[in-house]
Amino acid sequence: MSPLKESIAKLKYGEHGLIPAIIVDADSKTVLMVAYMNKDSLADTVRTGKTHFWSRRRKKHWLKGERSGHTQDVKAIYTDCDNDTLLVEVHQNVAACHKGYFSCFYRKLNDAGEWDVVADKIFNPEKVYGKKK
Amino acid sequence: MSPLKESIAKLKYGEHGLIPAIIVDADSKTVLMVAYMNKDSLADTVRTGKTHFWSRRRKKHWLKGERSGHTQDVKAIYTDCDNDTLLVEVHQNVAACHKGYFSCFYRKLNDAGEWDVVADKIFNPEKVYGKKK
Repeated sequence: MSPLKESIAKLKYGEHGLIPAIIVDADSKTVLMVAYMNKDSLADTVRTGKTHFWSRRRKKHWLKGERSGHTQDVKAIYTDCDNDTLLVEVHQNVAACHKGYFSCFYRKLNDAGEWDVVADKIFNPEKVYGKKK
Repeated sequence: MSPLKESIAKLKYGEHGLIPAIIVDADSKTVLMVAYMNKDSLADTVRTGKTHFWSRRRKKHWLKGERSGHTQDVKAIYTDCDNDTLLVEVHQNVAACHKGYFSCFYRKLNDAGEWDVVADKIFNPEKVYGKKK
């Protein structure tokens, strides 16, 4: 077994063989999104230098940006003390969120206990995806 | 129902009523750890200003730092476009990782495909926890 295969095998995968991956913008350190990888998506991510995930909703392998062109160029991959979470630093092309924001974490809990939108959209999802998402 | 209760109820909880929470150091933007909250741990986190989680392994409610004193003071709470992940910015007291590192993500995949330790320990876990962890 290659060192990479061993490193991938060493991780702890949860339900359906998935491990959560936190995606962070390498320059600004902004947390962009969380998605789930299986062993194949992690291997593809390392091999191609672009993030790949397993879509739990669509039940399919997924190159991030395959429709929008908003791919993520991998700069570094980390794992945690429990081997059950990944942290991937990337260069984000355009924006990470399918709703049009740079980061998926665009809502903040305010002092009144409500979720406030605290970021501006940087693209129009209807134009990029061709329909309302 | 209070606005906070509504905001907590609006989130999507997965298996066992848990939502993953990414914990980030508010100053350095370092991703410190990922842990899981249920509705009660999120409510306690907001109420006390200290992170609380549900331990999946120990099956119990958990104030981060209850043994080590390495608590996390909450600065901001965000959620994502899918309402199924939280991002919590904190001031980390001492260090987040029970292995002695500031962040749990102290291992990086190197070009040979191996996990390299890339951080220094900043406390001795045996001294803090009283036994080998």
